[in-house]
Amino acid sequence: MSDDAFTPRPEHRFTFGLWTVGNRGRDPFGHEVRPPLDPVESVRRLADLGAYGVNFHDSDLVPDGASPSEREAIVKRFRRALDETGMKVPMATTNLFSNPVFKDGAFTANDPAVRRYALAKTMDAIDLGVELGATVYVCWGGREGVECDAAKDVRAALDRYAEAVNALCGYVRDRGYDVRLALEPKPNEPRGDIFLPTVGHMLAFIERLERPEMVGVNPEFAHETMSGLSFHHAVAQCLWAGKLFHIDLNAQRAGKFDQDFRFGSEGVRDAFYTVKLLEDAAWDGMRHFDAHAYRTEDADGVWDFARGCMRTYLVLADKARRFASDAEIQEALRAARADGLHQPTVPAGGLDSIRREQFDLDALGAQGYGNERLDQLVTELLLGVR
Amino acid sequence: MSDDAFTPRPEHRFTFGLWTVGNRGRDPFGHEVRPPLDPVESVRRLADLGAYGVNFHDSDLVPDGASPSEREAIVKRFRRALDETGMKVPMATTNLFSNPVFKDGAFTANDPAVRRYALAKTMDAIDLGVELGATVYVCWGGREGVECDAAKDVRAALDRYAEAVNALCGYVRDRGYDVRLALEPKPNEPRGDIFLPTVGHMLAFIERLERPEMVGVNPEFAHETMSGLSFHHAVAQCLWAGKLFHIDLNAQRAGKFDQDFRFGSEGVRDAFYTVKLLEDAAWDGMRHFDAHAYRTEDADGVWDFARGCMRTYLVLADKARRFASDAEIQEALRAARADGLHQPTVPAGGLDSIRREQFDLDALGAQGYGNERLDQLVTELLLGVR
Amino acid sequence: MSDDAFTPRPEHRFTFGLWTVGNRGRDPFGHEVRPPLDPVESVRRLADLGAYGVNFHDSDLVPDGASPSEREAIVKRFRRALDETGMKVPMATTNLFSNPVFKDGAFTANDPAVRRYALAKTMDAIDLGVELGATVYVCWGGREGVECDAAKDVRAALDRYAEAVNALCGYVRDRGYDVRLALEPKPNEPRGDIFLPTVGHMLAFIERLERPEMVGVNPEFAHETMSGLSFHHAVAQCLWAGKLFHIDLNAQRAGKFDQDFRFGSEGVRDAFYTVKLLEDAAWDGMRHFDAHAYRTEDADGVWDFARGCMRTYLVLADKARRFASDAEIQEALRAARADGLHQPTVPAGGLDSIRREQFDLDALGAQGYGNERLDQLVTELLLGVR
Amino acid sequence: MSDDAFTPRPEHRFTFGLWTVGNRGRDPFGHEVRPPLDPVESVRRLADLGAYGVNFHDSDLVPDGASPSEREAIVKRFRRALDETGMKVPMATTNLFSNPVFKDGAFTANDPAVRRYALAKTMDAIDLGVELGATVYVCWGGREGVECDAAKDVRAALDRYAEAVNALCGYVRDRGYDVRLALEPKPNEPRGDIFLPTVGHMLAFIERLERPEMVGVNPEFAHETMSGLSFHHAVAQCLWAGKLFHIDLNAQRAGKFDQDFRFGSEGVRDAFYTVKLLEDAAWDGMRHFDAHAYRTEDADGVWDFARGCMRTYLVLADKARRFASDAEIQEALRAARADGLHQPTVPAGGLDSIRREQFDLDALGAQGYGNERLDQLVTELLLGVR
Repeated sequence: MSDDAFTPRPEHRFTFGLWTVGNRGRDPFGHEVRPPLDPVESVRRLADLGAYGVNFHDSDLVPDGASPSEREAIVKRFRRALDETGMKVPMATTNLFSNPVFKDGAFTANDPAVRRYALAKTMDAIDLGVELGATVYVCWGGREGVECDAAKDVRAALDRYAEAVNALCGYVRDRGYDVRLALEPKPNEPRGDIFLPTVGHMLAFIERLERPEMVGVNPEFAHETMSGLSFHHAVAQCLWAGKLFHIDLNAQRAGKFDQDFRFGSEGVRDAFYTVKLLEDAAWDGMRHFDAHAYRTEDADGVWDFARGCMRTYLVLADKARRFASDAEIQEALRAARADGLHQPTVPAGGLDSIRREQFDLDALGAQGYGNERLDQLVTELLLGVR
Repeated sequence: MSDDAFTPRPEHRFTFGLWTVGNRGRDPFGHEVRPPLDPVESVRRLADLGAYGVNFHDSDLVPDGASPSEREAIVKRFRRALDETGMKVPMATTNLFSNPVFKDGAFTANDPAVRRYALAKTMDAIDLGVELGATVYVCWGGREGVECDAAKDVRAALDRYAEAVNALCGYVRDRGYDVRLALEPKPNEPRGDIFLPTVGHMLAFIERLERPEMVGVNPEFAHETMSGLSFHHAVAQCLWAGKLFHIDLNAQRAGKFDQDFRFGSEGVRDAFYTVKLLEDAAWDGMRHFDAHAYRTEDADGVWDFARGCMRTYLVLADKARRFASDAEIQEALRAARADGLHQPTVPAGGLDSIRREQFDLDALGAQGYGNERLDQLVTELLLGVR
Repeated sequence: MSDDAFTPRPEHRFTFGLWTVGNRGRDPFGHEVRPPLDPVESVRRLADLGAYGVNFHDSDLVPDGASPSEREAIVKRFRRALDETGMKVPMATTNLFSNPVFKDGAFTANDPAVRRYALAKTMDAIDLGVELGATVYVCWGGREGVECDAAKDVRAALDRYAEAVNALCGYVRDRGYDVRLALEPKPNEPRGDIFLPTVGHMLAFIERLERPEMVGVNPEFAHETMSGLSFHHAVAQCLWAGKLFHIDLNAQRAGKFDQDFRFGSEGVRDAFYTVKLLEDAAWDGMRHFDAHAYRTEDADGVWDFARGCMRTYLVLADKARRFASDAEIQEALRAARADGLHQPTVPAGGLDSIRREQFDLDALGAQGYGNERLDQLVTELLLGVR
Repeated sequence: MSDDAFTPRPEHRFTFGLWTVGNRGRDPFGHEVRPPLDPVESVRRLADLGAYGVNFHDSDLVPDGASPSEREAIVKRFRRALDETGMKVPMATTNLFSNPVFKDGAFTANDPAVRRYALAKTMDAIDLGVELGATVYVCWGGREGVECDAAKDVRAALDRYAEAVNALCGYVRDRGYDVRLALEPKPNEPRGDIFLPTVGHMLAFIERLERPEMVGVNPEFAHETMSGLSFHHAVAQCLWAGKLFHIDLNAQRAGKFDQDFRFGSEGVRDAFYTVKLLEDAAWDGMRHFDAHAYRTEDADGVWDFARGCMRTYLVLADKARRFASDAEIQEALRAARADGLHQPTVPAGGLDSIRREQFDLDALGAQGYGNERLDQLVTELLLGVR
């Protein structure tokens, strides 16, 4: 696994959350299997593996309830590790889900005091992220949902959600921070239903905010796939709307619990089209992995996991390049009339000219699009036999 | 089943598509089991059952390829049935999916000629709908999708989709029609993946149109449920965004083929909360059923089906009223702090005052929300034992 | 909620696991929200609510690593609570999933030492269960699965699984215990895929054991529903095969994480048909609830949860009786030709007579089965409006 | 796509149903897009592509209602094509789903006359299959299910299902046919729920038949995957039980309508492990493709589709061989202790020796299984970069 072409380097802009390599393997039915991992150790190991940077929840770095001096010491030591390794912190986020205080929600908790605490904790976390250089702030509303639908008026919940995001945008602006917010949707787990369950619902929500230009989406492979939806279609809509502010790459099987598997280990076709989309669009954001090692793994397995995420991305990016230069694939695209989708539909003569047009429906209905051949060519490209 | 309280009447604003009662029971593995149903017969029978009106695809009423004089005769005869029964046509739509010409899409077909034909057919259908009084025009892009992802650039597809809807809005405006467009999302079937797969993706898409104020959503119970999402949450987001222009009521099990079962026959809790939402909001639109009788049924079963959809809606609406007047439920809502969600989060003192606030996290984390009791009370309300 | 007709009493044979009411609300993203619950307190509270008994995992009652004298003291105190309340322990089971030692499996772990430990722990747990009166022993193989499919030869895993169950049957027999084993399937979570994922796969597996007569199934509503399958069909197949040895009642939405919600709170139709099936069959086993209170709840909510499970069962059992005595429903069953399914297909003349028979396919194809009407009648029975 | 290594030849034992290449692209929302395909043409084209044989439903070859002389002419012409090409007919089946007569079921229809007709049609179809050389008879009970659960007593339905299969086994025996039956499970579609929904439920059912040795399973990739279950786990259980009598290869996304896509076009990992399993087990049955071309395709696309199914199988079979000879993968398997699963668990000393054993739980809990590395190696094997 040492082929140079697939060796990660900082210019590939791969990032990991401290919580990803630091995941200790706890699950709903089992205890932790791995010892705690020092954030500084994570920085050093990821730097060695060729990553660009790390991201964190406030509580991943500074334990809740730490004193100002403890916080300072932790940040100083962490910053030193960043400086020594050249690693960056492009994104930060807040843990608004672990503490029992959030059991009924954070920004949409029924109790206003909980909502105020969630805002206070988030402002602190934004400060911490900015201090370490983050320019993207991710909000995952994991507890913003409900099991007993009677307990929440959904429209009121959306009002409160919008109020919170508006307030945070105002905070960022007032402080003069160079930070954009990226909201992360998820359909369910840990709540029975989470509000704004898909990339689409989140994109729509953003349009009703006071400063929509400051807010985008952080789509996650696993979350969109849990609902059986195409992840790369969702990412494409984000790009189309100018709203891809961050991305969470991992793997997931549809209709299952949130798996957060190693990127590319499931759903490799959707992974390929996602990589192809990001590379074709020359998207300038981070390739962030929000995943963790299987619970079967010891500490070494964690680094195998991290290495695998990045290698698979590079392998798929290479295949995206081959797709573009493969003459047979390009010919099949022409047979599928793929270029026709880039032409405007309405001719110079306008709608009137369309109404006068005579359509040969039999001929149009009879033509084939050669999609079986095209899809097989992509399959063989993916399987490495062309 | 003759209880007066649950007898449908026109003021309940129940509508059915001609294609729903006219469904002949064909499915992917079986032939038609019921004879064709004359649209005029459908109008008369539905009027007898207490419906408010009927909706149709162009091809449901006027067969594709009918001559102008045939069209005129059909429309005249149909209008007479409407006049005699007092039935309305509040909505119309276009069949852009049955003909082989649409096999690669309609507004997002790769072939521009197919896209032009789809626009021409839609303009004709809008004319027909307006002629019969429709003020809502539904677009379901059932073929706007893909199996072989390489064949379609999703961003180009969204460009073409937007171009088509923009063109239709222009057409409606130029003609001076009093018509709004309602776009209907669906995640898959008949395509492997359909573009704009959920209510959320569609709401977001609308915001990027030229005249978003003319365009809303037609959410369908079955379609949102296929992805395992909460339908009433989606409807609530539509209402919140001012975008509920129409609604398709039916029943569906998550993660299965598009079932279009009788309203309330599956997912009765989500059905209840949907009805409660529409009634609480005093939503002024049609209660449209986009469903069909099981394939086991003969012609009589079709009318049992139609009667059942309406009765169940009325039963659930009655339960929504009881919910509001049930003292124990109202007390449980207080215990769940439901009212707190309607209060603003940020106090008069602004964010600064929040940062100075001392939060008693242990107390906030320890408090219970009584959701088990509240949910059980709703369960018993639904089961009719309170 | 004090209506006498729906008040649980011991003769209803309701049981709860200590781990159900004792669930502390931990989930993959959040810490415990409720304090530990003393098993003796659970016994007393459940007795007060009208339950028949409690079940437990070994570790629920006696902490792993307890000394013999500690074990003795715990068991003595627990038995006293049982004696004082009249509560029974009809079932026991083993925790083979929480300890990191089981991360690669228990009976199907790749490491033989882990498998031996799993057997040793299970024998101890059987002893404990028998000591307290249990006659059913449940095996849930929550860790018997895999994420990286290359790591396990599935046929070898089934060999080891069968070896373990065979060994335990031998142990029970050698000891002369009056105990039957009930195996519990689950499709996934915590493993990516769990071996023997449905009731069907488990029933089939049992037939290949050395003493299949000693082994049956413990179907769980949530587990079968996670795969989108009909729970009551699965229970019916267990009954049909004489293999319903225990049952786990709760609620679940298809295609989601393992929710273990209050019985009847989701999927009420499938819950109704399940209750109807158990009651119609006069099944003599326990009505066990393997569920837990929402994480929003404090200690009081736990008992609301327990009460709700039992009440809903009794409400549905009452509806099952009404189904049998409702003249219109019975008439609709005749219209659906439901009785015909109980008649043998092959006539006295044998297959030859069938081949000579002239079938009027048009008439047979035209007949209706009145299932819309029948289903609507059941819907109205469930909604309490008939 | 002409690489010799992946060119199908008859010895690879690839078969297709006449209904697969003959699929005309009709779906629930659209009309046929391809002209009818002459079965003789299918035989010739598939022979040219390197297939071993074809399979059929009775009605695929001989239209329902054909006279004896028409049947004879059709069979004679078909047999000639087989003889000229060397193609075989290893399997046959019956269409018990298209005709309206089966709308309430075939072997489990409530009306005994329908059930008798289903038996008569099946006996005729077995005769036809045997006449053309088939030794496997597949039963797919696509209509054996229900939407309105009240209409069917599931246990009675299983009685009737068993009666029918028992009768057919008797028929085969009485006639002295060398035929085995393979039952094919499916969870839903076209029925709301189909009886015996998974490979597991079907395997269990078979054990209750009169002559279980004559009956096995025909697992289908799409059907098991619709429920989100691992197909190769299901196939492994069939092999483990000696019940893999036939197999249907295709592709499917979990939680969606029955897609029947080209083999390997979705779920390539599960496809790989399935091929590896069949090849490792040297399974001697047919590699049958029950799939069809996308509706976007014209007649040429159908043969691209057929060619792609076979090529992908051969590519995956080649990877299965590489898996076995890849030193690094083999080393990773040792690190995962994969061999340990093949050793018996119970030592020579029996269970008693296990109970006396001292287990070092900390050490056992701490050991890692290297599954991330192993899985990444397989991923890279699949992607063709090792």
